[in-house]
Amino acid sequence: MSAPAAATCDIEVDLAAIRTAHARIAPHIHRTPVLSSGSLDDAVGAKLFFKCENLQKVAAFKARGACNAVLSLSAAEAKCGVVTHSSGNHGAALAWAARSRGIPAWIVMPSNAAQVKQDAVKGFGGTVRFCEPTVADREATCAAVEAETGATLVHPYNNWRVIAGQGTAALELLEDAPNLDAVITPVGGGGLLSGTAIAAKGLRPSIKVYGAEPAGADDAYRSLQAGRIIPQTDPHTIADGLRSSLGDKTFAVLRSTVDGIETASEEAIVRAMRLLWEKLKMIVEPSSAVPLAMLLEHKISLDKLRVGVILSGGNVDLDRLPWQT
Amino acid sequence: MSAPAAATCDIEVDLAAIRTAHARIAPHIHRTPVLSSGSLDDAVGAKLFFKCENLQKVAAFKARGACNAVLSLSAAEAKCGVVTHSSGNHGAALAWAARSRGIPAWIVMPSNAAQVKQDAVKGFGGTVRFCEPTVADREATCAAVEAETGATLVHPYNNWRVIAGQGTAALELLEDAPNLDAVITPVGGGGLLSGTAIAAKGLRPSIKVYGAEPAGADDAYRSLQAGRIIPQTDPHTIADGLRSSLGDKTFAVLRSTVDGIETASEEAIVRAMRLLWEKLKMIVEPSSAVPLAMLLEHKISLDKLRVGVILSGGNVDLDRLPWQT
Repeated sequence: MSAPAAATCDIEVDLAAIRTAHARIAPHIHRTPVLSSGSLDDAVGAKLFFKCENLQKVAAFKARGACNAVLSLSAAEAKCGVVTHSSGNHGAALAWAARSRGIPAWIVMPSNAAQVKQDAVKGFGGTVRFCEPTVADREATCAAVEAETGATLVHPYNNWRVIAGQGTAALELLEDAPNLDAVITPVGGGGLLSGTAIAAKGLRPSIKVYGAEPAGADDAYRSLQAGRIIPQTDPHTIADGLRSSLGDKTFAVLRSTVDGIETASEEAIVRAMRLLWEKLKMIVEPSSAVPLAMLLEHKISLDKLRVGVILSGGNVDLDRLPWQT
Repeated sequence: MSAPAAATCDIEVDLAAIRTAHARIAPHIHRTPVLSSGSLDDAVGAKLFFKCENLQKVAAFKARGACNAVLSLSAAEAKCGVVTHSSGNHGAALAWAARSRGIPAWIVMPSNAAQVKQDAVKGFGGTVRFCEPTVADREATCAAVEAETGATLVHPYNNWRVIAGQGTAALELLEDAPNLDAVITPVGGGGLLSGTAIAAKGLRPSIKVYGAEPAGADDAYRSLQAGRIIPQTDPHTIADGLRSSLGDKTFAVLRSTVDGIETASEEAIVRAMRLLWEKLKMIVEPSSAVPLAMLLEHKISLDKLRVGVILSGGNVDLDRLPWQT
């Protein structure tokens, strides 16, 4: 599941594919609300529209892509189930999506994954398969499950059906807030940002689309600068959903569509997360706070503009909050 | 601002008054979403519809009543402003509502009130007037402000315009979830429960309406049992919004309309609050969790029914969470 170093693949998702994905998954997902806060607007000098994917099924936008991938399988494929590697929201989302179609899901995660993450997958009826915490072993374990069961691999982001599904959040956001000047999403592997860019630019060509990335895991920023994928080797960020490297598909979309990727410091991410809790009254995970953190640090100039922000998820340990020692 | 011991007043609010209040305040307040959670449904064995007043202006339903009271003033009255006693959400709400009409607000609070509560009032442009932390001195201080300024007293709950405003949350809830079998709200002074009962029974006579009260501040429960107002003298509850006594107006409404008031233990309130954070991804204050706590303790039987719950507010100190030592 690692990405190739070069990226020259064709883009297979367009606005029409995202509309089709939306029609397919709409009966299964939540239509999440779009919220605003005058205090947060004042804090950054723009008018912000927060798409609350922390209120989505499995508390993350990942439900959209996983659901689209599972529902896109042929009957014959579906019968054999799905497999992925993820100790995070995608693993839970794929287990949830598989259960809603009544098919098996195998989720490969390192043997040292937190019990709460194993329990989330099991709670949605998924089967956990352990691997060693190395890229080589997780790929070998995924391949073994595929060979053994005939399950279809659903990569967390480097997958066109997943990218199309993630784009449906921006589709809804622009229905509810049609006159946006810009949209910002967090960027880890780039699935959400890719889908968002295709949907938003398709609906509204003048819109600007930005990615926000932790400075401690800035591979997407560096990859776009370099014009080639630079894998993330040693991420240091509290934003645990954003430690992945780009894939060839997401890199191809991002380099041809987004207007920029900017970074945020850890201090700003924690401050932004707390502001979202205090002012928006939303439980969001650190990854969700990175776009606001980037705005607080004035990395791009959006003065007085109307800016959509996708709050990517809400899975956080309430016993260990980052502003508490 | 204390309530008389006997209560024989006529009820001056009906469904039409609540509809009028809603038309009056709608341009100023948020239309808050109604959310559901399968896990919470499973936890209590009913289908729950949460009206998220934690996402309201000033993060509390109190914005509704305060706004209706302020907008109902004549031009001559308005010019002299408004005054109330409250160190909680009503004080901030009245300051906010007054600012939106461009009139002054004086908020009387004890000299030992938390700095954050003083700051909230000042942040909305209100003027804080300190009193000693006794009923006698807060009433004397309110009366002094009235005499000095001509300001109109807006009681936090024992006021027909406030009660009509609070009823607008149930009006919206029943528009979004029309087939409810029951509605539950927290009960402190009884303003929210009174407005909810009048709105809900007016729209849907078969609906059951319940109040949920901390066992450690159960004056409303005891007052309805006794048939007379029993003031709350020594409340012991984390639900700081629910420590007040009923007033004659709210007592008159509750005794003639609600189907019951039940209590919840402190342990259940904390557990319910954490469940709302974890499962609904909503920051709610302890008072908001009392209805769910009551359901978790099976105080009333609502098996498989459709139950509306008003989440009253979201103002909580993120540095001191009740499940942390």
